[in-house]
Amino acid sequence: MNFVEENDVVLIKLNNGEDFVIKIVKDGFLSVPFGTVFFNDLIGKEYGDVINFRGKNRRGYILKNSIVDYIFNLKRKTQVVYPKDIGYSILYLDLRPGDSVLECGTGSGAATAVLSRAVGKEGRVITYDLDPENSKIAKENLTFIPFYNNVLFKMGDVKDGLKERDMDAFFLDVPDPENSVENAINTLKPSGKICIIAPTFNQVQKVLEKMEKMKNTIDIQVWETMIRNYKINPERLRPEDKMVGHTTFMIFGTKVVWR
Amino acid sequence: MNFVEENDVVLIKLNNGEDFVIKIVKDGFLSVPFGTVFFNDLIGKEYGDVINFRGKNRRGYILKNSIVDYIFNLKRKTQVVYPKDIGYSILYLDLRPGDSVLECGTGSGAATAVLSRAVGKEGRVITYDLDPENSKIAKENLTFIPFYNNVLFKMGDVKDGLKERDMDAFFLDVPDPENSVENAINTLKPSGKICIIAPTFNQVQKVLEKMEKMKNTIDIQVWETMIRNYKINPERLRPEDKMVGHTTFMIFGTKVVWR
Amino acid sequence: MNFVEENDVVLIKLNNGEDFVIKIVKDGFLSVPFGTVFFNDLIGKEYGDVINFRGKNRRGYILKNSIVDYIFNLKRKTQVVYPKDIGYSILYLDLRPGDSVLECGTGSGAATAVLSRAVGKEGRVITYDLDPENSKIAKENLTFIPFYNNVLFKMGDVKDGLKERDMDAFFLDVPDPENSVENAINTLKPSGKICIIAPTFNQVQKVLEKMEKMKNTIDIQVWETMIRNYKINPERLRPEDKMVGHTTFMIFGTKVVWR
Amino acid sequence: MNFVEENDVVLIKLNNGEDFVIKIVKDGFLSVPFGTVFFNDLIGKEYGDVINFRGKNRRGYILKNSIVDYIFNLKRKTQVVYPKDIGYSILYLDLRPGDSVLECGTGSGAATAVLSRAVGKEGRVITYDLDPENSKIAKENLTFIPFYNNVLFKMGDVKDGLKERDMDAFFLDVPDPENSVENAINTLKPSGKICIIAPTFNQVQKVLEKMEKMKNTIDIQVWETMIRNYKINPERLRPEDKMVGHTTFMIFGTKVVWR
Repeated sequence: MNFVEENDVVLIKLNNGEDFVIKIVKDGFLSVPFGTVFFNDLIGKEYGDVINFRGKNRRGYILKNSIVDYIFNLKRKTQVVYPKDIGYSILYLDLRPGDSVLECGTGSGAATAVLSRAVGKEGRVITYDLDPENSKIAKENLTFIPFYNNVLFKMGDVKDGLKERDMDAFFLDVPDPENSVENAINTLKPSGKICIIAPTFNQVQKVLEKMEKMKNTIDIQVWETMIRNYKINPERLRPEDKMVGHTTFMIFGTKVVWR
Repeated sequence: MNFVEENDVVLIKLNNGEDFVIKIVKDGFLSVPFGTVFFNDLIGKEYGDVINFRGKNRRGYILKNSIVDYIFNLKRKTQVVYPKDIGYSILYLDLRPGDSVLECGTGSGAATAVLSRAVGKEGRVITYDLDPENSKIAKENLTFIPFYNNVLFKMGDVKDGLKERDMDAFFLDVPDPENSVENAINTLKPSGKICIIAPTFNQVQKVLEKMEKMKNTIDIQVWETMIRNYKINPERLRPEDKMVGHTTFMIFGTKVVWR
Repeated sequence: MNFVEENDVVLIKLNNGEDFVIKIVKDGFLSVPFGTVFFNDLIGKEYGDVINFRGKNRRGYILKNSIVDYIFNLKRKTQVVYPKDIGYSILYLDLRPGDSVLECGTGSGAATAVLSRAVGKEGRVITYDLDPENSKIAKENLTFIPFYNNVLFKMGDVKDGLKERDMDAFFLDVPDPENSVENAINTLKPSGKICIIAPTFNQVQKVLEKMEKMKNTIDIQVWETMIRNYKINPERLRPEDKMVGHTTFMIFGTKVVWR
Repeated sequence: MNFVEENDVVLIKLNNGEDFVIKIVKDGFLSVPFGTVFFNDLIGKEYGDVINFRGKNRRGYILKNSIVDYIFNLKRKTQVVYPKDIGYSILYLDLRPGDSVLECGTGSGAATAVLSRAVGKEGRVITYDLDPENSKIAKENLTFIPFYNNVLFKMGDVKDGLKERDMDAFFLDVPDPENSVENAINTLKPSGKICIIAPTFNQVQKVLEKMEKMKNTIDIQVWETMIRNYKINPERLRPEDKMVGHTTFMIFGTKVVWR
């Protein structure tokens, strides 16, 4: 449905560039620099509709909270994976309808939502975190975005080994991936794929050394993605002055039978 | 299932770096530099299993044909959208379970498969192309990769206007996007999102001019993605000597009510 | 000489990352977060020597003001050309011992110093600016850095035409290069080279159109440079989080005889 | 002088994109795809002049051999430093009129020519190589480009220590810089600057560890440069499809007094 209902989570976007992610509870309101938004006025409006404020050129829009807005606005204790990296890794992990994918750690649930959407209704996401607070935050965050009811939250450390087997894919995003990569690959079925998040070169080096020794992973690739934003004035088209210089390297591999 | 069945499309990957995408028909075979692969021997094997050839260090693996392998190996008359760009645009389009998305043009079906996976079983992909041969090639290509039964192929030109309305998203990849962007946006519901593929700056400029005039699209963003591949020797870690310098710019926007 | 003398311009670099470019006048002093530096104490010290402050780990160094520190610290009304771009263009302009080079506009003298060094003692730099205040600022800035006594400051606008002829090279950095490029190329001898600073794509497009029409310029190349800085912790080697996304495009060409 | 003289080294550039660097000896000739160029016809011509061949649109130009053409066309046994990297390092080394700079190793003389131009007539370049054949090739290469008579070739290995002291700058480009950086820094005066070429991350890591231990180098910076070339059609402005993905990382530092 394209109409705002009570308890929807929405994105209110002002034309001064400010964003607000908010749950539309009955009788609620939101104070923004342009004035006050009363939620009862929003219920029943169409998504994409304008919110008018007093004063010239002061307007806002009521929008769906998109996955990118979700990732950049979520509550978090840890660094999130950027859309540029998640988008790329989802394709490399070849997540298919019905696949089972493991995630460590859950973090704030940024990647969890994307993984859930990628494997579909019949798929399954099992997401581990060491820190119960992370799982709690992630569950809360995930109420802000639509995804499939296919996510299972678990507590545990991939360094101790996980009991799951025959997984189709693994998204490994932990502080010391070199100590987790072996256990992670052990959960995969042959032909299963892994993506390892490794922000420093030292981590990449150590993970590659571990993978080399295991011998049961082929097509090992290391990638980084960069994105550049442009100023949108068509008379003065040029990239923005600043850009993100680095988020992470990503290591991909496919498990095979080694004998 | 993780076992090769008759008529599966598989990826045979040799450890000399060569790849072969092939349908496993009964009594078929494939000649590769290392020798001959008889398909009857492969049927019943587990995906990820090794194929041994005579000679030291000559081995291959039987793998699933992944979406990235699909994109880079498909039959085509036109340039395909790269995984780096599709992965990013899928996130920015915020494709959700059950969404309806329009694609113009179908091309060789590279993006079509990704769009199908992204909207899920209850979603819908309507993909237009002017050239019946493209649709034919795309349909053929799409037999090589699993996706949902949610794709509708149509013939037609977005420049003439499309009769679809209330779409959630539009993926516009045509030679002269400046002449199609207005009709494309007209098919969207308020809060619907568009991604426009524009390889040259002149196209970006003209599309932005058109979008400015329409006034019903906000959050207009222009991005380019770059990716860099690394040599995987952990003793001599460094980027590859060459990289892709350019594929396309991507223009994103969200439709709103203008009044 | 490697010893600080009265009236030297020096760079004082604290180990908290702060920099100060200052002239060492007799009886002068400089207040920095770590304390006060008395210039009489510095005179006679060797360049590279340490300046000790009270408090653990509070130290500074007295250094020569390098060309890069000069460029990033100079007084200016306008945007400076970045070292990444000047360094590249100096090579492409093929400035040789004894060459004559024209610069428009002078700006704050960032490029002027580099051009002066590049053509050597027997070379010549003629630098034009429309705005007398720019020339004044540039002359002042240039007292902060060693270069050859080979620079001539002039007032004037390349759009009106310049009377110089037979120049070896032209460094064109003005707000609307498309209106100046023809006059600039007219000052060059055959085989002379030009570098045009053009921050937007629209400028690049217009300049290229002008150069195409003139027909007397070959080997036309358009380049952009990007640089990335790394965190220097050898245990956690990785690029910095942010980087410069854009400064300018550079257009190069070589004048030839057209007949 | 802008006229071709006997024994000049020139660049002959055809309008099909082909380049030829050649010495104009009396009675010599050069066969190119468009026909034959007789050198006696070129002597006395102006640099930048056209060479006409039979056939429509078949023309060439006689040009000076620029430093960039020199670097990309020189005879070599080893990898050369790219203009993008030399240009940047020359600025960071802050080479001034009259400076003394050390280079190890000489290689094919690509950087040597740039260093010579940068320190000027009163400056000095001392360039070491282990391999006498490299020095020989470099000397030969350097006859192809104008530079100052300020270069001294020496045989020797920086790993054994060099006897030079009080140098203003050091350009270190050897296969295992981690074993040479200490000796290299020992040749510098306080405030002297070093640039270390290190193509792999493992080298960067080891060099940084060495520099950390020495404690007498500040302002340590690690950079990489990337350049992107654009297609010059003003109607279809876009980057080239391919670009250089990596040449080297560069480590910079300034020597100070440590006590």
